[in-house]
Amino acid sequence: MTREKDRPLQIGALLFEGIDQLDLTGPFEVLARPPDTVFRLYAKSAAPVRDVRGLRLLPDAVLGETPRLDVLVVPGGFGQEAIMEDEETLGWIRRQAEDATHVLSVCTGALILGAAGLLKGRRATTHWAVHHLLPYFGAVPADERVVVDGKVTTTAGVTAGLDGALRLAAALHGEEAARTIQLFMEYAPEPPFDSGSPKIASACVTESVRLLTQEITARREATARRVATRLGIEA
Amino acid sequence: MTREKDRPLQIGALLFEGIDQLDLTGPFEVLARPPDTVFRLYAKSAAPVRDVRGLRLLPDAVLGETPRLDVLVVPGGFGQEAIMEDEETLGWIRRQAEDATHVLSVCTGALILGAAGLLKGRRATTHWAVHHLLPYFGAVPADERVVVDGKVTTTAGVTAGLDGALRLAAALHGEEAARTIQLFMEYAPEPPFDSGSPKIASACVTESVRLLTQEITARREATARRVATRLGIEA
Repeated sequence: MTREKDRPLQIGALLFEGIDQLDLTGPFEVLARPPDTVFRLYAKSAAPVRDVRGLRLLPDAVLGETPRLDVLVVPGGFGQEAIMEDEETLGWIRRQAEDATHVLSVCTGALILGAAGLLKGRRATTHWAVHHLLPYFGAVPADERVVVDGKVTTTAGVTAGLDGALRLAAALHGEEAARTIQLFMEYAPEPPFDSGSPKIASACVTESVRLLTQEITARREATARRVATRLGIEA
Repeated sequence: MTREKDRPLQIGALLFEGIDQLDLTGPFEVLARPPDTVFRLYAKSAAPVRDVRGLRLLPDAVLGETPRLDVLVVPGGFGQEAIMEDEETLGWIRRQAEDATHVLSVCTGALILGAAGLLKGRRATTHWAVHHLLPYFGAVPADERVVVDGKVTTTAGVTAGLDGALRLAAALHGEEAARTIQLFMEYAPEPPFDSGSPKIASACVTESVRLLTQEITARREATARRVATRLGIEA
C-alpha cells in the first residue's frame, strides 16, 4: 500500500451513460462503509448520468478533477462499449490504475480494463455472455466469479460486484472489517431460483438471455477485435 | 391485478435523504429490467438526494406528481427515522399502497410501512438490528429473509431486497421471467465469508454492528413508541 497515512482512503468509480447501475452501487455499498473512506463517482461531464434502465446518478466530479485514487472501480453496462474506444477515459483509467493499489472491475467493466491494456497476461473474468472476448485483450480467461490477479480484481456479471467488493474490503481493511460490513448489509443471500449462471439455468432461460444480448455482444466483439489490433494482440 | 392493459407497469420507489442506496438500487436492478415497465424515484423535492454514504440519486418527480403505482417500493436507511413521522410522506404511502397490487419494503423501510399503519396484523420482517421493533406497528415478526403477506412483501437488511425483488418479479411476470432476470444479473452469489446474519456471524462481529447502530436503534425505538401510541397499538 502506497497510501499516505494522513489522508482518507480515496476510492473512485468511473460513471458513464448507459452504465448498469448495480455494477457501481453494489461495490459502493460495501466499500464506502468503513470510516476514513471517500468514495466518489467521476464522469466526463458534471451532468447527471442515466443507467441502462433510466436511474439517474450524479457524478461528484469530472475526470480531470480526480485526485490520485487508492482504489479504482470500473463498472459495466451497455454504455461500456463506447468507452472501449474513448481515449480520454482510457487514459484516465491507465493513469489512475498505475498509482492505485487496487483496481476492481464489475461485469463488462472488464472489457474497459482490457481496452485500456490492463488485462494483458492477467487472469480475468467478466459477464458470462462476453467471457469469450477476454482473449482479445490478452487476458487469461478464468471461469470464476471473482478473480484476483495482482492489483486487478475482475468479477462476473452485475451482482458479482458484491462478492468482489467484499474480498477487496478484506484486502483493504482486514477480514474482521469485511465480515462486519457483510453483517451490516445482511448479506446471507437466498436467491429464490437456481438460475444465476448458465451452468445451472435452464437451456431455455440461457437462450433467452443470449437472444436479448446478441446484438450488443456482436458489437462488443467487433470493438474487441479493433482493440486487439490496437494493442497488437493476436486473439 | 387491477392494472390496465394499455399502460406500462408503473413502479415507484420512495427516495429520501439518508436512504441506504442499495435498498433501492437492488430492487431497481431486478424490477426495472422487463419491457413495458416504468420504474421511477419519487421524493418530496426535485433536488438530488444523498444516501447515507454520499451517493447522489436524482428523483424523477415529486410525490405530488406520482401516477397511480402498480408497485410501491419503500427502502430504508438512517434517514428512514424522520419519515416515520412525516405525515406528507406517510399519506402518500397510504394512498399509493391502497391502489397498488404490490408493496415491497427493504431493510428498515418496513418501519416506514409500519408507521403508515400498513403492517397491522401482518407477518413482516426487517433488518435484524431492529427486528424487535416490529410489534410497535402491530406486525407479527417473522424470522425470515423475505416475508410475503397479501400485497405486502417485507425483506431483511439491505441485500435482502434482491431476493425479495426476484420473488416479486416472479409474481408480476411469472417464474420464467424472474429466472431470466436472475441469469442476466448473474445472481449466483458467493459471499466470501459466513457473516451475513447474526445466526452465523461471530459474537464479536455482531457486537460491533450493534455498537455501530445502537444510537440510531435507540432513536428508532423512541419513534416507534410514539407511532404505536398514534396507531393505538399496545406493544
